[in-house]
Formats: sequence, structure tokens, C-alpha cells
Amino acid sequence: MIQGIYTPNLVPFLDDGRIDEDELRRIINWLIEKGVSGLYPNGSTGEFIRLSFEERKRVVRIVAEEAGGRVPVLAGAAESNPELILEACRTYADLGCVAVSITGPYYYKVSQESIEHGFRNLAERSPIDIVLYNIPQFSNEISLPVLTRLALDCPRIVGVKDSSRDFPGFLNALHAIKPQRPDFRCLIGCEEILLPALMMGADGGTLASSGVVPEALVKLYNEFLAGNWEEAKRIQFELLDLINAMLYGTNFPEGFRAGLSLRGFKMGTSRQLLSPEEQDNLEGIRSRIAHILAEGEYRLPQ
Amino acid sequence: MIQGIYTPNLVPFLDDGRIDEDELRRIINWLIEKGVSGLYPNGSTGEFIRLSFEERKRVVRIVAEEAGGRVPVLAGAAESNPELILEACRTYADLGCVAVSITGPYYYKVSQESIEHGFRNLAERSPIDIVLYNIPQFSNEISLPVLTRLALDCPRIVGVKDSSRDFPGFLNALHAIKPQRPDFRCLIGCEEILLPALMMGADGGTLASSGVVPEALVKLYNEFLAGNWEEAKRIQFELLDLINAMLYGTNFPEGFRAGLSLRGFKMGTSRQLLSPEEQDNLEGIRSRIAHILAEGEYRLPQ
Amino acid sequence: MIQGIYTPNLVPFLDDGRIDEDELRRIINWLIEKGVSGLYPNGSTGEFIRLSFEERKRVVRIVAEEAGGRVPVLAGAAESNPELILEACRTYADLGCVAVSITGPYYYKVSQESIEHGFRNLAERSPIDIVLYNIPQFSNEISLPVLTRLALDCPRIVGVKDSSRDFPGFLNALHAIKPQRPDFRCLIGCEEILLPALMMGADGGTLASSGVVPEALVKLYNEFLAGNWEEAKRIQFELLDLINAMLYGTNFPEGFRAGLSLRGFKMGTSRQLLSPEEQDNLEGIRSRIAHILAEGEYRLPQ
Amino acid sequence: MIQGIYTPNLVPFLDDGRIDEDELRRIINWLIEKGVSGLYPNGSTGEFIRLSFEERKRVVRIVAEEAGGRVPVLAGAAESNPELILEACRTYADLGCVAVSITGPYYYKVSQESIEHGFRNLAERSPIDIVLYNIPQFSNEISLPVLTRLALDCPRIVGVKDSSRDFPGFLNALHAIKPQRPDFRCLIGCEEILLPALMMGADGGTLASSGVVPEALVKLYNEFLAGNWEEAKRIQFELLDLINAMLYGTNFPEGFRAGLSLRGFKMGTSRQLLSPEEQDNLEGIRSRIAHILAEGEYRLPQ
Repeated sequence: MIQGIYTPNLVPFLDDGRIDEDELRRIINWLIEKGVSGLYPNGSTGEFIRLSFEERKRVVRIVAEEAGGRVPVLAGAAESNPELILEACRTYADLGCVAVSITGPYYYKVSQESIEHGFRNLAERSPIDIVLYNIPQFSNEISLPVLTRLALDCPRIVGVKDSSRDFPGFLNALHAIKPQRPDFRCLIGCEEILLPALMMGADGGTLASSGVVPEALVKLYNEFLAGNWEEAKRIQFELLDLINAMLYGTNFPEGFRAGLSLRGFKMGTSRQLLSPEEQDNLEGIRSRIAHILAEGEYRLPQ
Repeated sequence: MIQGIYTPNLVPFLDDGRIDEDELRRIINWLIEKGVSGLYPNGSTGEFIRLSFEERKRVVRIVAEEAGGRVPVLAGAAESNPELILEACRTYADLGCVAVSITGPYYYKVSQESIEHGFRNLAERSPIDIVLYNIPQFSNEISLPVLTRLALDCPRIVGVKDSSRDFPGFLNALHAIKPQRPDFRCLIGCEEILLPALMMGADGGTLASSGVVPEALVKLYNEFLAGNWEEAKRIQFELLDLINAMLYGTNFPEGFRAGLSLRGFKMGTSRQLLSPEEQDNLEGIRSRIAHILAEGEYRLPQ
Repeated sequence: MIQGIYTPNLVPFLDDGRIDEDELRRIINWLIEKGVSGLYPNGSTGEFIRLSFEERKRVVRIVAEEAGGRVPVLAGAAESNPELILEACRTYADLGCVAVSITGPYYYKVSQESIEHGFRNLAERSPIDIVLYNIPQFSNEISLPVLTRLALDCPRIVGVKDSSRDFPGFLNALHAIKPQRPDFRCLIGCEEILLPALMMGADGGTLASSGVVPEALVKLYNEFLAGNWEEAKRIQFELLDLINAMLYGTNFPEGFRAGLSLRGFKMGTSRQLLSPEEQDNLEGIRSRIAHILAEGEYRLPQ
Repeated sequence: MIQGIYTPNLVPFLDDGRIDEDELRRIINWLIEKGVSGLYPNGSTGEFIRLSFEERKRVVRIVAEEAGGRVPVLAGAAESNPELILEACRTYADLGCVAVSITGPYYYKVSQESIEHGFRNLAERSPIDIVLYNIPQFSNEISLPVLTRLALDCPRIVGVKDSSRDFPGFLNALHAIKPQRPDFRCLIGCEEILLPALMMGADGGTLASSGVVPEALVKLYNEFLAGNWEEAKRIQFELLDLINAMLYGTNFPEGFRAGLSLRGFKMGTSRQLLSPEEQDNLEGIRSRIAHILAEGEYRLPQ
């Protein structure tokens, strides 16, 4: 059952550039202790495209092992060709993941017809449930008509994660799909609008900020569930400052990496190099995030 | 006090291309009887740019006269140069309008610095309150930092109407401005997200669909005010079909003109010609709208 | 016969904001003396949208009077509704202009079908030849299929002025139209690529820089006609520095206004206000332009 | 010496989805016989991103082996993280390639500062010359200031391949770099404007159409070199129909794959699936290409 607060996992690196597997395990345990609903390795936050295919599979293995069934794992499988996607699907099924998440194709522009056909083909062959991942900023959009037809026709496709920041589009997806397939999971991937998405019927969200302040996102979600919408609103608005500090002013997901390092984890240096000026600038951003983290009460578990 | 459901007024035309002033008066009266909170002539819905300057002033005069103080009038004053904007401001002040609405400059790309400076200059000289109208689809965006500084520095600028469809941006505007200037009016100009906007603190909306089904929008707003959020949600979702039918498939605002003609008003032919094939196609859209209008219970006053 | 170097006329303003008609006449005479092939009032360079309709007609009257038949006048008639366009066409025909130039609709997004239908309608009713003005940066694109059909079907539509900066598209227009209608005029509106456009078959260009350094553009054109392509290339590349200095770093067309003021004309202050910081910055741009103008030999007639 | 007509190699597939190595070798030999100046495996045309890393290295090995020093090989090395790029550089250096071609990062938006810093880092460590590959349609743009600084500072960076379709930008690059570093290679990657690019100083092009009608592109280039510009122009314009037929109406590079199959090579099925309707539609495109190929005289060697 995919719902609630899913955390897209950041990847810590060692000085020699390899993945810091011990620290990744520490982070996973910390997140589960803080109460997140699920884990989401190999998303955009996890810089999947900057890992090799072997590394991506390794990351999911670590996350799945460490979760050990305590929370479900939704594994990113947005490989760049259909056969590799299918290989990823098989691997992640074997690792016990609850589902995989797959974007539209990236790099090339691809027609909506081809995208739909490709997902239908995949849905027939995949041994694991699929969540469509709509992020038109980085990859080909999965349009609303395509999403709707896939949701209504393909049992293997069990949900959508919408990071498009297009809230009218998200509401239209809820409206087009939920009345006919109530169990189809609609997750919001835009942290600024988590609460209104929940209010309108979303099942949860995959939210990079939940990797930095899991307490706050979990609390927001629980207040929502309890009907304490005013308190949930307060948290949502208070989170905006932190989100803005982490999202803007540097390459994504550097701000989130900075945030998590301030929570006591060694994140190392990202594989996408920053210029020396940008590294200096990142210090300013880090200070700002530190200040917000120190002030905010949302760090605290309830 | 600008709040609630404001209707951007469509303009009916006679066969000879002139504005059908009698029908416009009929529409105004009908809208006021249906309970809309205010009127908004010379918006994008009102095709202001396809009228001459004299016609724009005439439209506001008619609307203001016919409203006769029963509801406030927010007048579009997005002229294409600052002196004409100021002339429009003076005219609409004399006509008793509550405020004017002004977009960022259109046609040219203009820097945010120039846009801010231009609005500061205008705010000092205008005899009437100003609502900033953010519609980056058609005109230069008014960015969040510029909007925030103008809201906090300029008493004459009393609100924003946000038609950008960018809900994360709208929440950030609420968060940046309202705590410091609670009386600053934040209106949503995107009908698909009226309810979530209200839930998060919007003061109301300017919504083209309220010119076609005022009963539904007024009812949604009243249910929201009464705390009946589930009923408000039901109406919001039910409205999506109608909104989509009117927004897509033809040039804006032809779908809304078709909708209003189905409510019994003679809208005439728009000045932006449609090709014969598009006119045929519009018949199909009209049928679809008619079908939705006939089925929906939201047409009925409570 | 529309060909060669057409100058889009900048508009000088008096301190009270009115058009400086005497200075405009001085500029016109200077341009004709420098040898430009034609004049083009009410283009984007002429800030047509920041004038009132009456002022636009006044500008064309002045330009036409002062030209006095020495060079042809192509008059911008991109009014915002079809009836006003037609009124402009009639006025400019009476003033003896050789043709009018009309953009796709601006502000709204309009379908290609409607744009084509609108131009066909206009072509049937206009008393003066029409040049289509493609500038998708500021107004709806006139797509290649629409342009081609209009060129082949409508005798009244005699040419295109392409400011899209899309050179593959321009070559496709030449290829689609010229073999079937050799007299259709294809003018390039992007000064960086004037020479390659001429080399590939363009009939000329409408080029804002010809309003600042008419000698250079006229010389480039004449060297091209004489088959001295290497010399023409030298001028084209040398011009890039000046073009970049005038195009970038401030709102268009402020850089060109600064350039013309350095040639000895009083341009006054543009109606689109600059912030104080931008005005300071404009001084730096002005210095850079002055430096390039002082160094370049292209100012000199041959 | 990188100049002239470089062919971006299409990749043929077997029925089981593996690369058809024999057919690839056949194509390489055919291209060399037809006189192309160089080969360019692993470009966008070669669908590099739809291969695995091992396959990409295999493709370059085959091309380099088969070329056997007869023509230089420019190898695409646009891996998705810096360490993999460097590994590719080492491999392609060992295979005797003349240089590698690298795009800006794809998927994420990355700052120009980071892009510049990343390329400087790479230029210091690479054992092989680098050609920057600017294709903002699919990956982060390499802006003109960044390109210029890299060209003037980094000996390892020896050229640019510009597929942006932005001809004013290409001329500005020639103007900014060539006078200070005349041996910097400027290749155009937009086939519609090959001739004007050559006329203005480009060193050649990487052109997908040269993989289908190598005779035509080679002839165009030779006529240009011989000063027969009118004949070169005729070929350039005649090519537009074929280019348009292959570029539009289906996913890139399906049209080019169809074109090459019509020249007698078995291309197999692309890994990016087409819907059944698109496959039907591709038949129509294939017919159109066949018709153009049959009519055009440009297939013939001179």
C-alpha cells in the first residue's frame, strides 16, 4: 500500500567518489525511526543518472536490506532504454520492493503515442508494480490523457508520482482516474503543495524535504489525517522557507544534501562538480538552512 | 473590500461588430442576481486588447452604471503605455470602481527591475487602488520578489490576481506577504484550483467560469465559508469537466462565450475570427458544454 | 519594389512625453541621405505598442511626408483587432506607403487556423499590399505552412519579414515559396545573419542597426551586390560587437536609442521607464557603444 | 584535423535487440567509399543513450576498427557522470579516435558555472582532444561565454559541434573564437544551414543526412571548396525536402533510419518502440523519402 510520506533518498559519497554505503545505511535507519512511510531510492533526489547502472542496483539493494520490511521501498527504475528498465524491474522485484517508479524518456523528445505504447508494453512484461513518474522539467511529460488511459487499462500501473508542479493538472488526474479506479495511488512530488494535494485527495507524496526534516513532514501528514488542518497549514507554510533555501541558489539537489549534512550525516562531494565560487556560495546557503533549522520547531517530533 | 467570487466579464457583440451594450447590461444584472461578489470588466476574458481604448472605457462605464453600487467593480487597466494606464486609472476612479487591475507589460520582454520601477511610479500617481495581475502566459511575469516588495512598500497596491497556474508560487506569495500585510488581497485566477487556494488562505478568485455558472462558483465559495469542505470539494471536481470543455479545443475565450450563450445571452461573433473548420468544431464544443450544463446540478442555486 | 536595407524607425520623445516630430524628421532625412533603401515606421524598434493609435498614424504620416517619395515606406499596422488593422491599412494606403507590415496576434495564444483565416480575410479587404511580420518572441508565430499557403494564394500578401532568428526556417520559406512565386519578398529581420540570408536568396532586411549605422549596412549590402563577399563578411562580423552591445544588457530598444543618440540625435526618454540602477547601467552600455562606434571604420561611407 | 563532412553513425539492430555489428561494418565501409571526411559514432543520431555503456564502447571499437585509419573517428562520450566520461575518453583514445564529443549535462538543469568548471576539470584530465557538443534541445546549453572561455583557455578543447539551430549564436562563436584561436574547429550540426555556415567560416559539419545521402553532402562540400557556390546552393535547397521528410513526422532518428534502409541496409527495429499507428505512419514517411531519393539527382556521385 503506497501512501503517506515517501522519502527520496539522497546518496552520500566517500572522498574517493564511491558511494558511502555505511552512511547510507545510517540515513535509512534514521528516516525509519523518524516515521517516514516509505523509501524511494534512485529518484531525481538520489541523482540516479549520475550513478552507473551497477551502482543504482547496489543502492536499491542497500536500501531494501536496511529497511528489512519495516517500510516499503519504491525503487526508481528510469533506465534509458526499455530492456534496461525491465532488467531493473526484475532486480527490484527480487529485492522485495513494493513497486518501481519510471519517468518518461529523457534526452530525446518522444511522442506521447510512443510513450504510451512503451508503458503498455512494459506493464505487460514487468514482474513488479509500476508508478509513473511525471517530471516534465527533466524528461518527456506523461500527458494527462496518456496517464488516464494507462491507469484505467493496466493493472500493473498502480499509481503516479507527479513532480510537475502543475496543480491544476494533478487535480484533473485525480478527477479522471479516482472515480473509476479508487486504488490508483496519486502522490504529489512538489513539497510546497503537499497539504493542498492531501486535502484534495492525494494519497501522499514523495518529498525531498522529508529526507532532511522527516519529523516535520510526518507531523504535517499526521495532523492532516487527524483533521487538524490549521496546524497542518502552519507547518506547510513554515516549511516554505526551508524548501526555498534548499531548492534555489544552487544545482539540485545540493541544497538538500547540505540540509542533510546539517542533520549530522556525512554526505561528501557530489559527482556534479560545483565551481569554486559556487562552493563558496553554497556555504551561504548552508548557513541559511542551518538558521532555519535552528529556529523551526518542526524539527521536533511531536 | 475585494474578496469572494469576482466575474471577469465577457463582452457581447452586435452583428456589425459593435459592443452589444444592452446585452452586456442584461448579463451584469443576471450575475448580480446570481450572487457574485464583484465584477471585473476588461480582463483577458473580456478581450480587452481587441477593443479600442474608447471601447474599454465604455465597457467599464456600462458595468459600473449597471452595478450601481450593488457589487464592487474591479476594472482592467492594462493599457500598453504608462500614460494611458494612468488615464484609465483616473477614468475608472471617477466611475466609482473599487480598484484597477494591471498586468505586467506585454509584447516586449521587460526586465523585472523596470517592471517594479514602473509599478512604483504608478502607485505614487494613481488616484485608485491597484491590483497586480500576474498572467505570464500573455504578459511579462511579475516575479515573487517584485510582487512582495511592491506589496510591502506601496499602500496603493492592495492585492494580486494570480492567473499563472503556478500554485507553489501562489502559496509563496501568501507566505511572503500576508503575515506582514494581512489586508493584502490574494485572488486566484485559475478556476481549477479555487478551493485549495481558499483553503490555504486566498481571499477569493477572479474566475471566468463564474460568468457562465455563477451559481456553482458562489455555492462553492459559500460552502467553503460555512466549513462544508467536502461539499465544496465535490463542486470543485464537478466543475473541472465544464472548465476543460470551455478552456480547451478553441481559442480563449470562445469556449466561455459559448457557455454564456447557452445560458440565454446573445454573445455575437468574436473579433478574433475563427476559420470555418474551427467554427464547425466550436459546435461540437458547444454541444459538450450544453451536455455538461444539463447534467450538472451545480447550475441550481442552493 | 521592397528590397535592400529597410530601417525600422526609432521614435524620439520630448521631455513632456510627446513625440519629438522635428527630430523624427531630421532622422528620416539623415537616413535617406545615408542611402537606406526604405523606411519602416511602427515596427518593434519603433515601440508601436507604446504609442496610442492616433500617434501611430501620426508617425507614419510624418515619415511618409518627409520621405516624399525618395524611398518607399513600409508601415507597421499590427493593431490589436482586425477592424483597427483595416483602418490602419486604409490610412497608410492614402499616405502613399508601399505596403503594411502585420504581426501575428499578440497577448492571446491564437490557433494557426485562426491566424491563417484572419490574414486571408484581411488580404481580401486591404487596399494596400501586406508584408507578414513573423516575430514569435513577441507575438503568435506565423508558421511555415500558413506562410506558404498565404504567399501562394493571396496576391495582396507580397512578402515576409522574418525576425524569428530561426535561419533553418527562413531557408525553408525561401525554398517553399520562391520557386512558385519569385516576386514574393523575403526580408530578414535578424541583423546578425543579414549576409548569409542575402547569400541564400533574401531580398533584403529590416534591421534596427541600420538606424544607427546606416553606412555600414548599406555598404554591406552594396558589397554583396557587387560580389565582394569577403568584404561583406568582414563588415558582417565587425557589426556583431555593435549589435550585441545594443541588443543585450537593457530592455529593447534602449540600446538602439542610445546608439542613435550617439550619432547626434536627441532621443529623449522612452515611455517604458528604467529603474535608476538600469539607467546607471545604460551609461555603461552607452560607453561601450561609443567605443565601438569610434573604432569601427564601418561608420564611413565608402 | 577535424573538418569537412562528418557522419553521425546510425546503429542497426538485430531482431533480438542486439546491435547488428556486421551491418554496422557494412555501413562504415559504404560511407568511407562515398567520401565522407570522418565518422561520428555515439551521437544523438546514434541513439547513444539507448545503448548500455558497454555497447557504446563496442560501437566505437567497431567503427574505429573498420575505419582503420582511412578517416578520423570523433567518438561521442556524453556519459552521465564525470568519471564515466573520463573512462570513455581513455577507451576512445586507446582506440585511436581523433577526439571525443561531449554534450552539456542532461536530465538535470545545471548552472553555467558548474558546466564550465566541469569541462575545465575534464580538459585537464582527458588523454584525448575534446569537441564540445551544444544541443540545448536535449541537454543543458553550453552558453557562448562559457564556450568562448573554454576555447581560449583549454588546449584540449579543440572545437565545437553546434546543433542548436541558432545561427546568430554560431556566427557569434566564430567571431569570438576564430580571430584568437584560428585552429579551433567550428562544426555545424544543423543540416539545413550547412552551406551558409561554410560560407561564413565553419570548418564543416556533423550531419545526419550524410549518413543517408553521403554523395550529396560530399558534393555540396566539394562544390563549396571549389568556389561553385551556386551549385552548392542548389544542392542545399534540394536537400531541404529530404531533411524535412526525415526530421519531422516521427521520433528522431526514425526518419534517418528509414532513409538508410532505403539505401539497402537492414536497420532493424529501434529500441524506442513506436505505437502501431506510428509504425503505419512511418510507412508513409518511408514512401515520401523513397520518392525524394528516386527523384533527386544528388544521390549520384559527381
